[in-house]
Amino acid sequence: MTRQIRIFDTTLRDGEQCPGGSMNRDEKLTVARMLARLNVDIIEAGFPFSSADNFEAVRQVAQEVKGPVIAGLARAKENDIRCAAEALRAAEQIRIHTFLATSTIHMRHKLKMEPAAVLEAAVAAVKYARRFTDDVEFSPEDASRSDPDFLCRVVEGVIDGGATTVNIPDTVGYAIPSEFGDLIRMLKARVPNIHRAVISVHCHNDLGLAVANSLAAVALGAGQVECTINGIGERAGNAAMEEIVMALRVRKSYFNAETKIRTEVLTQASRLVSNITGLLVQPNKAIVGANAFAHEAGIHQDGLLKDKRTYEIMTPESVGLVEHRMVLGRQSGRHAFRSRLAQMGYALTEEALDRTFEHFKQVADQKKEVFDEDLVAIVAEASQGVAQTYLLRSLHYQSGSGLTPMASIELDILGRTEKQDGTGDGPVDAVYKTIRAMTGLDCRLLSYVVSAITGGTDALGEVTVRIEEEGGGDAGRKTFLGHGADTDIIMASAKAYLNALNKMVATRQQNPVHSND
Amino acid sequence: MTRQIRIFDTTLRDGEQCPGGSMNRDEKLTVARMLARLNVDIIEAGFPFSSADNFEAVRQVAQEVKGPVIAGLARAKENDIRCAAEALRAAEQIRIHTFLATSTIHMRHKLKMEPAAVLEAAVAAVKYARRFTDDVEFSPEDASRSDPDFLCRVVEGVIDGGATTVNIPDTVGYAIPSEFGDLIRMLKARVPNIHRAVISVHCHNDLGLAVANSLAAVALGAGQVECTINGIGERAGNAAMEEIVMALRVRKSYFNAETKIRTEVLTQASRLVSNITGLLVQPNKAIVGANAFAHEAGIHQDGLLKDKRTYEIMTPESVGLVEHRMVLGRQSGRHAFRSRLAQMGYALTEEALDRTFEHFKQVADQKKEVFDEDLVAIVAEASQGVAQTYLLRSLHYQSGSGLTPMASIELDILGRTEKQDGTGDGPVDAVYKTIRAMTGLDCRLLSYVVSAITGGTDALGEVTVRIEEEGGGDAGRKTFLGHGADTDIIMASAKAYLNALNKMVATRQQNPVHSND
Repeated sequence: MTRQIRIFDTTLRDGEQCPGGSMNRDEKLTVARMLARLNVDIIEAGFPFSSADNFEAVRQVAQEVKGPVIAGLARAKENDIRCAAEALRAAEQIRIHTFLATSTIHMRHKLKMEPAAVLEAAVAAVKYARRFTDDVEFSPEDASRSDPDFLCRVVEGVIDGGATTVNIPDTVGYAIPSEFGDLIRMLKARVPNIHRAVISVHCHNDLGLAVANSLAAVALGAGQVECTINGIGERAGNAAMEEIVMALRVRKSYFNAETKIRTEVLTQASRLVSNITGLLVQPNKAIVGANAFAHEAGIHQDGLLKDKRTYEIMTPESVGLVEHRMVLGRQSGRHAFRSRLAQMGYALTEEALDRTFEHFKQVADQKKEVFDEDLVAIVAEASQGVAQTYLLRSLHYQSGSGLTPMASIELDILGRTEKQDGTGDGPVDAVYKTIRAMTGLDCRLLSYVVSAITGGTDALGEVTVRIEEEGGGDAGRKTFLGHGADTDIIMASAKAYLNALNKMVATRQQNPVHSND
Repeated sequence: MTRQIRIFDTTLRDGEQCPGGSMNRDEKLTVARMLARLNVDIIEAGFPFSSADNFEAVRQVAQEVKGPVIAGLARAKENDIRCAAEALRAAEQIRIHTFLATSTIHMRHKLKMEPAAVLEAAVAAVKYARRFTDDVEFSPEDASRSDPDFLCRVVEGVIDGGATTVNIPDTVGYAIPSEFGDLIRMLKARVPNIHRAVISVHCHNDLGLAVANSLAAVALGAGQVECTINGIGERAGNAAMEEIVMALRVRKSYFNAETKIRTEVLTQASRLVSNITGLLVQPNKAIVGANAFAHEAGIHQDGLLKDKRTYEIMTPESVGLVEHRMVLGRQSGRHAFRSRLAQMGYALTEEALDRTFEHFKQVADQKKEVFDEDLVAIVAEASQGVAQTYLLRSLHYQSGSGLTPMASIELDILGRTEKQDGTGDGPVDAVYKTIRAMTGLDCRLLSYVVSAITGGTDALGEVTVRIEEEGGGDAGRKTFLGHGADTDIIMASAKAYLNALNKMVATRQQNPVHSND
């Protein structure tokens, strides 16, 4: 019988945990809805105890996203676990995922705990979590570098304590597939109560082996894989969901296993996450890279024309790679606009829809054919869900060979209109310096990327900037992502910068209730 | 005893074989020099028979790059092989790499040959290649989907015929590590003369498993790995060299094998190839991604401060990730400039150095601190090695809210100065439309990416465009990449576009001598 492998998506938790990965609450909700459309089994929505914002994001996902089990991460501490349970309360099905490191190096240098104390704390945490739900997952952090005997004792203990899923993380991305498969085989052979829990794996990609390690574990008995869209996450990231899912589908008879993911949604999900986070997907990325289905060599093209199977092991359609040409234009009404967005996985509030539709009309006036990719940018820009402390009223600029670039900017600052002129090394520099002077905000530009979203020179350009707040010491230093889209890239640059500044100002008004100890 | 694994780099052959991967001769030479610095064992410089340009690129690499063996690809045909041998003639050590498909689906539908004829042609090709060199490699294309008995017969036959390396390709990226390892084990067990050849592997990444498959093969006896920088190549690409090399280094005791790659050059090589091709490396790419060594979570940072080994399995320094801050500035002379470039792997002709240095001085005037990343962009822009049919003399532009973007451009067109004004949907569109009107060239913009190379708003912006020639039918349609760098992104956009157009015009004057049948 074909085994069912559960897909546990952690894009919103481990995926978010990388420079550039952070998402605001609206963005997390949008991604969670897409994950529900993909039909994942479990969505790990966040780490509620880590900040008030994280708590609130998990609460909203739990309340609004139906279908998958909603999980929250918690350290093996009662406060953490209670906080996660509270954030998850409104979900249809709740999972609490608690963890504690079991490798000698982590126990000795990070936790400063003896193995016996770790075992005891792990079991106690699981028991405590069971007060809130029957669905409890435990992760012995750094399992792949843990002493096998001790790992077996911990796994046995937490299952006795009530853990229904035991997740084996390769926390530092150190394992090799054959070795990692052997670890799963050992647990199945040596832990007497192992049949009472699902074995899960959580692999990191430091050596490029996260997907291969996960698949080796599935072949030897793992029943759940933890992964992220596009493989985003700490350092070199996590196992990429799209690769796990398609490997199991293409090689179903080899693995004798399958997932219930709707693979035709993979491409859209990849684009959504890339757009929201600004984390690019390289063209040679498996499954979802721009070139993944592009056959270049003459010999290959010749073979494909004779028989597709010569060079194609899966069809582009199976991952949802289809050309959507010109779905909307100047004539499109609000209804058509809303239903296209819904098909793409966006469910906006009426207020957000109004703002987004207005922006869409402006774009449609400028460029006639509005593609899906343009819509993603329009939504990203219009529905940021942050207060517009600074609003661009107008912008003029000019420059050229031998001239100093000049910008003239009008901003609405909390209802008051202000105007100022400025110069810079380039038109973007002139705009950014002038905005900084007008707002009095101090920040550093960490990255600035422009991409033309659709082909042609009249394409909508999308600018993504990342800024870092200056001052406040290393600990308090946060980064903010801004998006702006316009057919004029200088205009898009100004919008993106203001968007990031608005997020920075909005965050200053929030205070985390919990500190990360 | 630790086994030595040979690294066969195919960045210049299979790597180039993807949309966006194509390089001109100067660019190939620059990459080949970097590969020699990395200390790769074999450089596959190209497929000489495929075009006059490819032939010439292989010839130049063979003549100018010393250290590694230089290989050329050839189908199992005398003309192909003779052509490769001719292109390689000046190399210190020559390898001819010939191939023929052995899977039923390829033999039946693509080659339309019986297995017996395939075996005979493969052996004959190897024997013919041995007339030109003692170092002959044979690849049974689509080996992982070939009938095992037939594959064994072909491998035995070509070794008897004189092949010193037998390369087992997973051409369509279909294999799973345990299965691919078993294939290597089978060949070692069943092919009686297998000890007379080195077993090589060549894996594709369609399911995200190219690196894992290569490593599984190494563990079971393969002595050579074919790979590319950043894993670029057909579709989802090839095995990434940096991942293979670092996995073997970090897990040396597991594999009991090593390569002679200078790992500290990996980051620089990655950036060079990404910059030359315009193929971006995603931030979560293992080893060379921007986030590969970035620890984000509070818990991880806390662990790292207590003991680096808690979350770090290799140091950033081991892959050459070190911060080069302000190496050059306005005061830097030609000598300092040249030696910094040489350290980075660039060896320019005097003429190219003059052009590049002049451009460097302009940049240094604008931005004071010139980082290594800026130098890469400056070199990319200045040393394209193409005739400057169109040269930008001056550019002025202006626009703003409610205005139509305007551009005024002066070009030198083969010595004659022409001037024209134009408008567009944005400043870049205005510039590109005006340039198209002035040159009369017909092309389509496929992609347009701007990146700020170094931090700060006075960063040097680099624009990379890809254009496609219009007309001429599908077969003749070529794409061209253009680079431009300037502190003013509109200026950089103009330069990049002209660079691509100059390449397009230059290519029109060349005719391929061989056609790809």
